Amino acid sequence: MDRPPRIITLLTDFGSQDYFVAAMKGVVLSINPSANIIDITHEIPPQDVEAGAFTLLGCYRDFPAGTIHLAVVDPGVGSKRQAVVIECRDQYFVGPDNGLFSWICEQEENFTARNLTNETFFRKPVSATFHGRDIFAPVAASVSLGVAVGDLGETLPDIVRLDSFRANFIDENTIAGRIIHIDRFGNCVTNVTPADLRARGVASAWTLSLNNHEIRSFRRFFSEGATNDLFCLPGSAGFFELSVRNASAAETLNARRGQPVVFKAATLSAIEPQAS
Amino acid sequence: MDRPPRIITLLTDFGSQDYFVAAMKGVVLSINPSANIIDITHEIPPQDVEAGAFTLLGCYRDFPAGTIHLAVVDPGVGSKRQAVVIECRDQYFVGPDNGLFSWICEQEENFTARNLTNETFFRKPVSATFHGRDIFAPVAASVSLGVAVGDLGETLPDIVRLDSFRANFIDENTIAGRIIHIDRFGNCVTNVTPADLRARGVASAWTLSLNNHEIRSFRRFFSEGATNDLFCLPGSAGFFELSVRNASAAETLNARRGQPVVFKAATLSAIEPQAS
Amino acid sequence: MDRPPRIITLLTDFGSQDYFVAAMKGVVLSINPSANIIDITHEIPPQDVEAGAFTLLGCYRDFPAGTIHLAVVDPGVGSKRQAVVIECRDQYFVGPDNGLFSWICEQEENFTARNLTNETFFRKPVSATFHGRDIFAPVAASVSLGVAVGDLGETLPDIVRLDSFRANFIDENTIAGRIIHIDRFGNCVTNVTPADLRARGVASAWTLSLNNHEIRSFRRFFSEGATNDLFCLPGSAGFFELSVRNASAAETLNARRGQPVVFKAATLSAIEPQAS
Repeated sequence: MDRPPRIITLLTDFGSQDYFVAAMKGVVLSINPSANIIDITHEIPPQDVEAGAFTLLGCYRDFPAGTIHLAVVDPGVGSKRQAVVIECRDQYFVGPDNGLFSWICEQEENFTARNLTNETFFRKPVSATFHGRDIFAPVAASVSLGVAVGDLGETLPDIVRLDSFRANFIDENTIAGRIIHIDRFGNCVTNVTPADLRARGVASAWTLSLNNHEIRSFRRFFSEGATNDLFCLPGSAGFFELSVRNASAAETLNARRGQPVVFKAATLSAIEPQAS
Repeated sequence: MDRPPRIITLLTDFGSQDYFVAAMKGVVLSINPSANIIDITHEIPPQDVEAGAFTLLGCYRDFPAGTIHLAVVDPGVGSKRQAVVIECRDQYFVGPDNGLFSWICEQEENFTARNLTNETFFRKPVSATFHGRDIFAPVAASVSLGVAVGDLGETLPDIVRLDSFRANFIDENTIAGRIIHIDRFGNCVTNVTPADLRARGVASAWTLSLNNHEIRSFRRFFSEGATNDLFCLPGSAGFFELSVRNASAAETLNARRGQPVVFKAATLSAIEPQAS
Repeated sequence: MDRPPRIITLLTDFGSQDYFVAAMKGVVLSINPSANIIDITHEIPPQDVEAGAFTLLGCYRDFPAGTIHLAVVDPGVGSKRQAVVIECRDQYFVGPDNGLFSWICEQEENFTARNLTNETFFRKPVSATFHGRDIFAPVAASVSLGVAVGDLGETLPDIVRLDSFRANFIDENTIAGRIIHIDRFGNCVTNVTPADLRARGVASAWTLSLNNHEIRSFRRFFSEGATNDLFCLPGSAGFFELSVRNASAAETLNARRGQPVVFKAATLSAIEPQAS
């Protein structure tokens, strides 16, 4: 069997209503008619680079080697911000150098970033307002055809970084994290991982506090919780999440992204019976 | 020409904003890079199994033999609900056994359901909260590669059933149905079919009542109705629908899914002139 | 390498929640299992033919030769409106003859339109309410298989036309345009192009008025404007747009589609310093 067509994922804040996403798809297919275009999402809140970074972080590892991720959340389009292609984990990431890929680079550590300066691979003329169509899409399509990334531009010493997505260890009983995402169901994703708790040594019980709420109930499943019962469980993106069964934890907690979440090792007397 | 790639449709309640759908697509493409992934919808209202069942019922017959439908509306994820693959009408249906596929099985009658127990085909580790990514997507991708469904698990005597989508015959002049769907345009889809009326024998005129409204106007086209005129027409999913031209019948009628709709054979004197 | 599969784009006002789009995709794939289906958008406001026309106008040139655009915004479904296939710019456009493609035909000038009358290529039976599934999708799929468009129906002398998308030249100092689109970011797209201004002869400064606002600031980039500063820039669809950096120009201006926009050549004393 022939080699399957190269996968190019799309993630943008363009919404699904305008011609923007279609124009990018058209540009990709005009260059590589065999590309397999896969939508990640186009519903990143407008200009919300951090939401884009989290969404990519949540799914990039599920794509096969060779995947090209074309991502555009680009409040600085037209300014001096750089355009990059990043090689990381046998995948490629093409988009603005504004932090959109920084959590992936933080997660993987090994990566090479290049500044997209070779205009040979751009759509002409390059508009001032739509680099998704005019720079990122044709570059991603060119990579999918086998263009060497070394031909696209010079390597960069580093990329622009968002604040780390990792939680802080305050002392051996305290981890200071934050809400890094709230999903469609109202689940509040923290940036604290099961590994963070295990790293504290002996398996102890923990209490989580947010917005004057204390949560001592750790579960494994959504369906274990009673309705309106607030609990914490290890979520599918690898982080602890706060959930309410069949309701929105974000509403219950009046939670917003960025709010601090503190995990404290609980004294034994404070521990309620745990679900297995 | 080579055999075209296998079609895997996706239907979920995950919305279009999160990484959930992309993670499933990535898992599928990591197993079968040639799969042709087709989105049905990701906008099923959260945990609304019945809306998912209706949406599948409305389109599965339009897909070719061999299509694999991967559907996840799964309020019971992590609980004891079973995971199934169903063979029906030369198609495959993969998802939770919670009624999501039961209207298709009711429509087709002949089907074979299997319990997904063979963990060989799962993504590891299986999370407690995201079986769409960890069980259903890899199983669907494996089926698309030609894995025999017999290797996936044991046959089940039956699947979990929603309430029947069919209307009840009360007497020869009365059919008791309900609203089973309200679409984007506000059309109210009933569960009464033209065949139901024909089965009542001689072609007679009918009156439909809902929420203290009586509708005696049966049309064939949206465009036949005057603006604000409420009428009933045979819809594209095979059921009678209540419509208002260029407006929302659901708003006009204050209709909600599940509300009873009664079709009564009208006496001749009550019949208004019919559109052909 | 084999010829890549034919691209069939989809643009509808069906939304993403119902079975409508999936049914069309299923019909296409049942006829041509190798078709490469590309969503443009399904979020055209219900029955808003003009919004569909603008969205197609904004992206069709980015797709490769041979692309088939299947577009359904069809308030007159079931009435006497005709169904068409249009050949234009080595692409095909399939849908209702209600103006949806008229701006592309106005842009390109050379096109051939045919009335879809050959029922051989329809899904049977043809419903009264869903020609997207029953006429347009199977016809588009047939074209993708190589069916000659001459076999689909007779040529039409012209298509139904929307009001021209072009601005009016009132006198040598005045161009009367209108808002033809408001995008997700609140940018207000006018129907006045840089070429319109250049056609007025010597490069002069312009003032733009809308809703009792006067805008004299012309920029090249979004990021040049200060926050809350209203300015005009050449947009990616080829038209001047009104923008506010990191805010909605439509809200700032209380703008709606269709509102008149007047460009007037400014006297030199009225000119503020221009961004390059």
